[in-house]
Amino acid sequence: MGLKSWLIGSPLRMQQEGKERLSKILGLAILSSDALSSVAYATEQILSTLLLAGVAYLDFSLPISAAIALLIFFVAMSYAQTIHVFPAGGGAYVVAKNYLGRNSALVGAASLLIDYLMTVTVSVTAGLAALISAFPGLIAYRVPLCLVTIVILTFVNLRGVRESGKIFSVPVYAFIFSLLAMIAIGLWQPYTPVVTPHQDNYGGLMLGWILLRAFSSGCVALTGIEAVANSVQAFKPPEARNARITLVWMAAILATLFLGISYLTQKYGITPALHETVLSKVTRAVFGTHFIYYFIQFVTCLILLLAANTAYAGFPRLCSMVAADGYLPKQLTSRGDRLVYSNGIIALSIFAGLLILLFNGFTNPLIPLYTVGVFTAFTLSQAGMVRHWLQSRAKGWRRGILVNTIGAIVTALVLLIVAMTKFIYGAWMVLLAVPILISLMRKIHAHYQNVYGQLDIHSKLPLPNYRDSTALIPVSGLHKSSLNAIHYAQCLSANVQAVYVSLYPEMTKGILKEWKKYAPKVPLVVLDSPNRSIIDPIVRYIDKLQSEDPQCVVTVVMPGLVPLRWWHQLLHNQTNFYLRMTLFFKRNVVTINVPTHIQPC
Amino acid sequence: MGLKSWLIGSPLRMQQEGKERLSKILGLAILSSDALSSVAYATEQILSTLLLAGVAYLDFSLPISAAIALLIFFVAMSYAQTIHVFPAGGGAYVVAKNYLGRNSALVGAASLLIDYLMTVTVSVTAGLAALISAFPGLIAYRVPLCLVTIVILTFVNLRGVRESGKIFSVPVYAFIFSLLAMIAIGLWQPYTPVVTPHQDNYGGLMLGWILLRAFSSGCVALTGIEAVANSVQAFKPPEARNARITLVWMAAILATLFLGISYLTQKYGITPALHETVLSKVTRAVFGTHFIYYFIQFVTCLILLLAANTAYAGFPRLCSMVAADGYLPKQLTSRGDRLVYSNGIIALSIFAGLLILLFNGFTNPLIPLYTVGVFTAFTLSQAGMVRHWLQSRAKGWRRGILVNTIGAIVTALVLLIVAMTKFIYGAWMVLLAVPILISLMRKIHAHYQNVYGQLDIHSKLPLPNYRDSTALIPVSGLHKSSLNAIHYAQCLSANVQAVYVSLYPEMTKGILKEWKKYAPKVPLVVLDSPNRSIIDPIVRYIDKLQSEDPQCVVTVVMPGLVPLRWWHQLLHNQTNFYLRMTLFFKRNVVTINVPTHIQPC
Repeated sequence: MGLKSWLIGSPLRMQQEGKERLSKILGLAILSSDALSSVAYATEQILSTLLLAGVAYLDFSLPISAAIALLIFFVAMSYAQTIHVFPAGGGAYVVAKNYLGRNSALVGAASLLIDYLMTVTVSVTAGLAALISAFPGLIAYRVPLCLVTIVILTFVNLRGVRESGKIFSVPVYAFIFSLLAMIAIGLWQPYTPVVTPHQDNYGGLMLGWILLRAFSSGCVALTGIEAVANSVQAFKPPEARNARITLVWMAAILATLFLGISYLTQKYGITPALHETVLSKVTRAVFGTHFIYYFIQFVTCLILLLAANTAYAGFPRLCSMVAADGYLPKQLTSRGDRLVYSNGIIALSIFAGLLILLFNGFTNPLIPLYTVGVFTAFTLSQAGMVRHWLQSRAKGWRRGILVNTIGAIVTALVLLIVAMTKFIYGAWMVLLAVPILISLMRKIHAHYQNVYGQLDIHSKLPLPNYRDSTALIPVSGLHKSSLNAIHYAQCLSANVQAVYVSLYPEMTKGILKEWKKYAPKVPLVVLDSPNRSIIDPIVRYIDKLQSEDPQCVVTVVMPGLVPLRWWHQLLHNQTNFYLRMTLFFKRNVVTINVPTHIQPC
Repeated sequence: MGLKSWLIGSPLRMQQEGKERLSKILGLAILSSDALSSVAYATEQILSTLLLAGVAYLDFSLPISAAIALLIFFVAMSYAQTIHVFPAGGGAYVVAKNYLGRNSALVGAASLLIDYLMTVTVSVTAGLAALISAFPGLIAYRVPLCLVTIVILTFVNLRGVRESGKIFSVPVYAFIFSLLAMIAIGLWQPYTPVVTPHQDNYGGLMLGWILLRAFSSGCVALTGIEAVANSVQAFKPPEARNARITLVWMAAILATLFLGISYLTQKYGITPALHETVLSKVTRAVFGTHFIYYFIQFVTCLILLLAANTAYAGFPRLCSMVAADGYLPKQLTSRGDRLVYSNGIIALSIFAGLLILLFNGFTNPLIPLYTVGVFTAFTLSQAGMVRHWLQSRAKGWRRGILVNTIGAIVTALVLLIVAMTKFIYGAWMVLLAVPILISLMRKIHAHYQNVYGQLDIHSKLPLPNYRDSTALIPVSGLHKSSLNAIHYAQCLSANVQAVYVSLYPEMTKGILKEWKKYAPKVPLVVLDSPNRSIIDPIVRYIDKLQSEDPQCVVTVVMPGLVPLRWWHQLLHNQTNFYLRMTLFFKRNVVTINVPTHIQPC
């Protein structure tokens, strides 16, 4: 208890929940870390894919980046519409639930859950890749460093981050301005690249496929772009207008950084490597291995960890929403001491840790999983908006339909391209996980429906009749503790029996003799146990009683010994505990624990 | 359950315990593996210690070995006396308990427990060192191999080894005869040793200290020599005579193998190394890396694993004896499905595994711990015999006193030497562990005395009065499950109260309204919970009831939901479980679980 409150702080009251609103400057810092941080790995994804075809094909990275920048524009436009319609914040789950029905909502929930999970794993691994690029001595510790980072994020979030934008905004703006400066200097710096002779190894169709794959890889740049639209209420009034301006700025900065970095990799002829990020290579090319190089690596790592942190807000909140609708375990709706959804935070950390172990702490193989989840959510969200405009016909609905239809078609198309070109590279996992998750959520829902239906006081669930129940007292001998249980049982029922499991015939004789002397009124049933189990004969005896009278309710009154110190418990057998576990699932069996407290001597 | 019976076999009945007696040939095989296997590492211990002083000092190993062979003679003589007095088998614990009193018995118990534990760790690590010497590719897997071996030993012993001497005798006699053959060939083989010039770096006193340390190290050769004397009853009649002849033969073989190996190391100028055992080097020197070399390494590994296995019989049996006397947890006296003391076996494996991890799977640093434990037990055992002769004055008591007094003095002297010379090399751990273990055993005894005294039906332990107890039903709302608990409680007490912990004021209002309608006769107490805990307010309410009336017994009737499948349990909160855990230690609180079974839909 003391440890817990030291680690995560003392409990907070409900009223202590803060409601501070964000200015545009702070809003950009807090809500854009997820989107902006993706420039740390997006260009590298394009280059890695092109490199598989050959060094010469790296030249295609700039046009592909331009296409992705255009995609950023469309998606941002589309989300700018959502801001007006769902000022309370509309994630794909909410939009799909309101406008597309239950099935789409579950698809949305599943992909968003995967999306948040991937945000943590990709951001943490990429953040540590930035550090490892600067300090190659850490290579061997990649996986443990990732896991420690997740543990730290867990505790920080269990404590509850007061979203203190002022502190968070420092690394975000440091990242933005130092990268902008790097791009400007890189553009201006004279540099004669080594010209690679162009070999056309691949013809039309094959080349197209390679370019599509590279495009799919780069689309990871769009992850996190929906964050502003999901948090409109966090802004100062006029909320919608402020959120929209912030979204436009974020999209513009994202596109600039992404295109700038892609251009610099072209200019300096940079190729991806296993243990150094492309961004690190670009920074070294522009600045040399200088103080500013280390600064940029550090800031990159920080913004990526902030991005991972945003998922720690989003995932538990989404879980609690889905759980409140009955599609995930109820426990996800309950708030911990610090008013955060602790169970969701812990679940996220466990899954993220497992994924990092599975992928050995590398970022690249995680990217296809990330992109599929994100674009499924995008598509559902835009499609939901189209449906909304059709239903509401609110002011500007024609323009809305146009923008959101384009958004939905473009993101659906990208989703299709990613799913196809990246299927064997990991996209299959998400395409498999989403239906599994949905089926699981449906099963959970059905279970709750069944339970609540039967628990309803008007339901026909028959309740046992407790008059004339039999009280059974398992005893290990005649002592105060068994006497205590007998006293209790006698208040409870007219039909009290003690049962004794006989292991050694001589001991049994002695006990029968004592019993006649000290507890002659209570019948003692002696049960044989050929395999020395205490539990089995008792359970079999209850079965026998209930087979004679199926309506018979058996109350098992267990004499419990409560020692002075909890660790004294280790010196006594745990038969009561096992017996209670075994009897838990039996019908018409009530268990009672009658404690006998040992006094200090 | 299925897995368990597949792993360790189906339960046995008490009558199935076999009582096959041993001939001398089989007795030697079964009871000598512990003693004989120590020649696999004893010479190496002497050499390793001498090597610290300088290569030239290795020459002293032969006279030191001769001194240890003499010690073997004295100790064997001494134990031959014990055979007549304790034909039922007299370990140090039994002898000390009968003739030296409680304190010595506890010292004996503690050192024997450590002795058995060290038998497992030393034998397993040395057994795998023999394998690793032959297959150096296994070096990296030393610790995992040791741990896997311990897991296998655990399961074999949980299954219950019918001490089928015929199978066990094969590796033991193979070991004896192949080593005797090796020694004979080695003696006869012409070999011109490299003569090391003698440098006298150390003068008298220092030299003496070095030789004492080397002697202490070599004394590990005596471990296990007591096994025959502890198992007299296992022999065919005349038990005492057969056991004595076996003991003499074992001691003779032990001394021969030990001296022979020590001589060969001298002849071939063998020095100890980290990853190859001295015995392996000797075998290579005599035979070359030939088939017979691999055979001897394999047989050495086998006899060492048999030695480890003997501790799996001795440790649990000793634990059950000490536990029956009330100095260790009672659970150690209960036999598992296969009639073995399962808890003792599992405890031994856990401690052995931890020690192997702690010492990184190396044999050498474990030796001082082993020797201290063994010689403490020797000394106590012999001292107890002296006391016995003085008391009984039985036939031959004068000779008996003489032999056992010499035995006691010699082993006490060796114990002193080992404790002094090896103190900083690990003996301190045992010298620290023995008093800690004794104090723990005393505390356990005091606890049982206190509990049994109070549980006695004639004791003055006051029992609560259960008439007019208050029944408290914690409810999460008004549904069938709470109705079920209310019905049960109403049979039990005239004073039934439901308690509801209010987290959200609006929900509470709704429940109060429903309650008035459907359960107007049962008062509903609403408790506030500022920090959203469900348990704390209920516990505080019980405290309040009991502070108003200290004699008040509160029965907490918990409505329990039993879903169709056990994993459905994960979809419901575990409040009942936590509440029961919390209430377990409270005085005058009885807990009842009234289950409501969900039907299939």
